[in-house]
Amino acid sequence: MTTPAASQTTLGILAGGGALPISVAEAALAAKRRVHIIGLRGAASTDIERFPHSWVKMGEFGRLIATLTENNCKEVVIIGSAKRPEFADVRFDFGALKSIPYFVKLALGGDDHLLSGVIRLIEDNGFSVLGAGEVAPSLLSPSGALTLRKPKDSELEDIRIGRDVIAVLGPFDVGQAVVAADRRVLAIEGPEGTDAMLDRSRHLRGWTDDSRRKRSGALVKAPKPSQDRRVDLPTIGPETVRRAAAAGLAGIGVATGDVLIAEKRQTITLADKIGIFIFGVAAAPDA
Amino acid sequence: MTTPAASQTTLGILAGGGALPISVAEAALAAKRRVHIIGLRGAASTDIERFPHSWVKMGEFGRLIATLTENNCKEVVIIGSAKRPEFADVRFDFGALKSIPYFVKLALGGDDHLLSGVIRLIEDNGFSVLGAGEVAPSLLSPSGALTLRKPKDSELEDIRIGRDVIAVLGPFDVGQAVVAADRRVLAIEGPEGTDAMLDRSRHLRGWTDDSRRKRSGALVKAPKPSQDRRVDLPTIGPETVRRAAAAGLAGIGVATGDVLIAEKRQTITLADKIGIFIFGVAAAPDA
Repeated sequence: MTTPAASQTTLGILAGGGALPISVAEAALAAKRRVHIIGLRGAASTDIERFPHSWVKMGEFGRLIATLTENNCKEVVIIGSAKRPEFADVRFDFGALKSIPYFVKLALGGDDHLLSGVIRLIEDNGFSVLGAGEVAPSLLSPSGALTLRKPKDSELEDIRIGRDVIAVLGPFDVGQAVVAADRRVLAIEGPEGTDAMLDRSRHLRGWTDDSRRKRSGALVKAPKPSQDRRVDLPTIGPETVRRAAAAGLAGIGVATGDVLIAEKRQTITLADKIGIFIFGVAAAPDA
Repeated sequence: MTTPAASQTTLGILAGGGALPISVAEAALAAKRRVHIIGLRGAASTDIERFPHSWVKMGEFGRLIATLTENNCKEVVIIGSAKRPEFADVRFDFGALKSIPYFVKLALGGDDHLLSGVIRLIEDNGFSVLGAGEVAPSLLSPSGALTLRKPKDSELEDIRIGRDVIAVLGPFDVGQAVVAADRRVLAIEGPEGTDAMLDRSRHLRGWTDDSRRKRSGALVKAPKPSQDRRVDLPTIGPETVRRAAAAGLAGIGVATGDVLIAEKRQTITLADKIGIFIFGVAAAPDA
């Protein structure tokens, strides 16, 4: 009996919130691959129950490893949103106990640090971690326009400013999103997330639903330069389009190949209906 | 008849909002210097009327120059807060008309650009622009602790992180303030201002007035590296202390000599009463 090739094993999907875990599962199934979704309680949607699945809680590292093993998963995709856990609230299971000092060290670092630590722990247990884009390349941001509308030169400049701000902030483990308009930076994302940052931009500009002013500027999303591209890629979806439009922005700039688009068809349709752009640009030159 | 030395002429104070214009006037008077405050309507407090004063509106550049000339001002301090004008709302007087193309260019740039342009216009008309700290050095941030409480090592590290973030953002004309706690960047200031950023940090941390958690982290204020130190220095005051405390921060870090402290005595007294620090650190090494 020979070891099955990875592609014949089941793909494990460690699922946080949002629609992306489902999209990844569907893409894998379309490529004739078996999947087993492991939902993170409190984050993942019950929609995962349409697929072969299990549930784990934050801290149940032993159960996660056992579930992957029992389901013949050699490869794992970590996908979907999750709040940074309050360390004091996490209950570790027996399988996690031997790694406690390691978790403590992780919890003291930034998000990058935490996620790359989780990847290392999973890989140390004999599994491979794949990026969602490797399994579902159609979810990745393109080069150029996804929409009917394309950015004008001034809007392209706003996109470049946002992209460059994200690049210089790389060492600080903050900011995968920036709003720039008319050559000014209006907002840099912190742990509040993109939606809250867009709402702030809307207030800053005094934009209302009946504003008749001309749209300008862009939301820009790009990964931090040093970030492991296998996890926590910046994501946009219909809600991002809605809130960017509500903030009076002319569109959304994304780093080509490095941003995930959830519910892609709805996202593009909505952007076209409103008349804003989604546009992929190359990473910052010095990134 | 000889030209009087600048120190014998009246000091012109172009006043925006807040308490600083008054503090600068008082410091100049204490140094036996005559002052004439020119209040920016809609921004400056009517408290300036205790001193020899005039009022100008945004855009009344001709009136500003005439007022400085009539009052024998050779030197001018530009001090106090002012909202970035909506260009469409500014009414230019005759003295400003010849500079319209220049103002248009300014209005399209960032805040730094706008302010350094105003300085240049004033200087092109034969006046010198002084920094508030040159007239009132006691308003400038010190090196080390102003308060009874001093930052612990971990808090010093948060201060350094905030300072370094401000330094790397220098080229982008954004951010004179950052909140960092437990080695993470929680917020970077945009045009919303420090108070709104502190309120955001408070929400992010879920901090309430009856929180019994241990304070951590710092608000950090420093000028952008390339900024003209004569205008728009970052400022703290009692309200900053109140909101930093309300956000659960352990204190405020300031760039030594480059941050103005409004209502200094009240600011320090309040910080000591609450038990948070105000601490001056050197600029970022690469700044």
